[in-house]
Amino acid sequence: MSMDAERLERLKGVLQQVGLDALLLRLPENIVMTCGVWPMNGFSYGLVTAADGPVALVAPACEDQEMDDFWGSDVRYFGWARLDAPPDPHELITAHLRDIARTLKIERARIGYEGSFEAVAPSHNAGELLVPTERHRAYLAEVLPDARWQDATDLLHGLRARKTPAEVERLRRSHRIASDGLRKFHQAVEPGVSEAQLAAVVYGECLNRGVETDGVRHVNVYPQISSGPNAHRAWRPIVTTGPRRLQDGQIALLELALCVDGFWADVTRIKVAGRPTTLQQDAFEAVRRAQQAATDTIKAGVPAARPHEVATELLRNLGMDQYMVHLTGHGLGFRYHEPEPFLMPGNDRPLEVGHVCSVEPGLYHESFGGIRIEDNVAVTEEGADVLTDAPKVL
Amino acid sequence: MSMDAERLERLKGVLQQVGLDALLLRLPENIVMTCGVWPMNGFSYGLVTAADGPVALVAPACEDQEMDDFWGSDVRYFGWARLDAPPDPHELITAHLRDIARTLKIERARIGYEGSFEAVAPSHNAGELLVPTERHRAYLAEVLPDARWQDATDLLHGLRARKTPAEVERLRRSHRIASDGLRKFHQAVEPGVSEAQLAAVVYGECLNRGVETDGVRHVNVYPQISSGPNAHRAWRPIVTTGPRRLQDGQIALLELALCVDGFWADVTRIKVAGRPTTLQQDAFEAVRRAQQAATDTIKAGVPAARPHEVATELLRNLGMDQYMVHLTGHGLGFRYHEPEPFLMPGNDRPLEVGHVCSVEPGLYHESFGGIRIEDNVAVTEEGADVLTDAPKVL
Repeated sequence: MSMDAERLERLKGVLQQVGLDALLLRLPENIVMTCGVWPMNGFSYGLVTAADGPVALVAPACEDQEMDDFWGSDVRYFGWARLDAPPDPHELITAHLRDIARTLKIERARIGYEGSFEAVAPSHNAGELLVPTERHRAYLAEVLPDARWQDATDLLHGLRARKTPAEVERLRRSHRIASDGLRKFHQAVEPGVSEAQLAAVVYGECLNRGVETDGVRHVNVYPQISSGPNAHRAWRPIVTTGPRRLQDGQIALLELALCVDGFWADVTRIKVAGRPTTLQQDAFEAVRRAQQAATDTIKAGVPAARPHEVATELLRNLGMDQYMVHLTGHGLGFRYHEPEPFLMPGNDRPLEVGHVCSVEPGLYHESFGGIRIEDNVAVTEEGADVLTDAPKVL
Repeated sequence: MSMDAERLERLKGVLQQVGLDALLLRLPENIVMTCGVWPMNGFSYGLVTAADGPVALVAPACEDQEMDDFWGSDVRYFGWARLDAPPDPHELITAHLRDIARTLKIERARIGYEGSFEAVAPSHNAGELLVPTERHRAYLAEVLPDARWQDATDLLHGLRARKTPAEVERLRRSHRIASDGLRKFHQAVEPGVSEAQLAAVVYGECLNRGVETDGVRHVNVYPQISSGPNAHRAWRPIVTTGPRRLQDGQIALLELALCVDGFWADVTRIKVAGRPTTLQQDAFEAVRRAQQAATDTIKAGVPAARPHEVATELLRNLGMDQYMVHLTGHGLGFRYHEPEPFLMPGNDRPLEVGHVCSVEPGLYHESFGGIRIEDNVAVTEEGADVLTDAPKVL
């Protein structure tokens, strides 16, 4: 992917507004937004200034792959984890960073860093993530001792909250692949199939179909299946993806997180193995209608609590709101969950164009199981642009 | 899993030795070691003192699952992400932590925390990890203002370096599952199969076979496939798991990370689709012999550089050492990669009983592709206890 002009403009605007001269980033989720590339593991540096374009400093393991990704940015490499590189790459990184700072004239500037990202997204080498800690903070002070460092976590979350049109298109691609996974899940649920088998089938479908989509590089798939007596225990599936096999009439719930080149989807479907009971049908129908009502409410300017209230009201009229234990939606896009917007009671902040959030009412009770439907939408002036496209059938 | 007595004893011994009264932990990888449980996402607290057993504070989403895991530990819960809990759970957490501190008499104690874990392992809810940042550090100072806080990162890595016998058995289980994945990969490689298909097959095999193993709860699988012209570009596969299909005579390389209830495996196999060339056979045979020679060298007391030197020497005698670009091994177990021991040039620190590391010589050249064989071993007084059990055939 490449960085879009609108994102760069917004970024510079916000930096000027808060009086920061630059951002020095390491988290893949922030580099994907600012530099337009999704680094391998968090050991890359992205530097963007209010005056100039982004500069990226990446490890050579990423070289070929990343080179053509940096659109309008200066890319440098440092040796890492090779016999021909120094065991500790920081000497090289320090030299690069000082050189970049000199060139950009930010040696004495106010620079933002990622001090408080308590939630972090795995990158495409998902088995291990490298994150900035207080050792990193001390290192920055050593590299550029005259710079004034400032924790830019809230500023970055603010920037991330509203996705640009180009970013929404990226998210649409992620959701096309997620929808493939949902459809496959729907086909695969039947008496006798195990949770692990269902997860594996969804993983394979998203990966195979995903990487065959034009332009996709990395697809990471995180399916979680809860079924039968485990499906209703809490809003979060407590016990997920074990060996248990579905019996006739039992529910399987798929919580599917998926990341395509840095852009996330978070969706849920349920399906009964065999014939649903009347109770299951009624609860499902209630959730489906609550989700529709909440979605219909969404558009720019509406308070973020409103979709939740509308869903709750509908469920109350059906006498089922006591089984609704969680909020109706959360932000997402650069991560599985993002803090804005939260569709929850009391949140009177208005929804904005470019907000992307889940809409996921759910009902949980042992009599019918755990029933949740989750789609993700982008907020527009006109309404909710639903990114998922998969049937909602029990 | 449950905490083993040897680990608890070592832990208390080290705390007394360095003059720390307690550890307050959040990273799942450290809680699995200290408290014997693998939390869902990093938003749990584990507290262990030099005097008392561990205390754990977990979110209710984990309740049922974790309850019986805490062996000899006090478990408390706080509300989170539910409509019946406060939006910000920190008020509850603060009350719990202060109460625990009062009970354990550590309100004015020296307490270690995780200040500098730059590399972090995903937990079983692998799509998002919650990590301690400087906001967490500030929070700790607020919760227990009279405690003296100390970054315990190096101490924790030191503790983790030597696995207890019970932990080695846990790792053996992880490697049994990883070996199933390697065998499946070997069967599945043939002309026409895509990288994505291979990754999906390995994922399904490890997940299905994994959760059917007695006592396993969570299996997370991270397969990466590089093939054909991508297999040789660097020691780390640069381009992994795309749509490309194997042609006759091309190599597929599987880098497989796998985590079973907090215990990691990191293994690699390669396989040629169809008939290998003589060059491929020769390079493979050289790597296989280098790996065997390195493994044969391993036992407690041997300098950590020695296995690397032995592998290099063998490859030099075969005229192939110029194609060896990376070190021969790294620590692992509580994470995909751990800092001890590194089997690399110049490392004269002796291997110790309980060290667990990879042995992974590799050769990379466009004429034969990328060829690496990676197994993991536990160091004993007698030699290397090889944890993997999968054939090495091209």
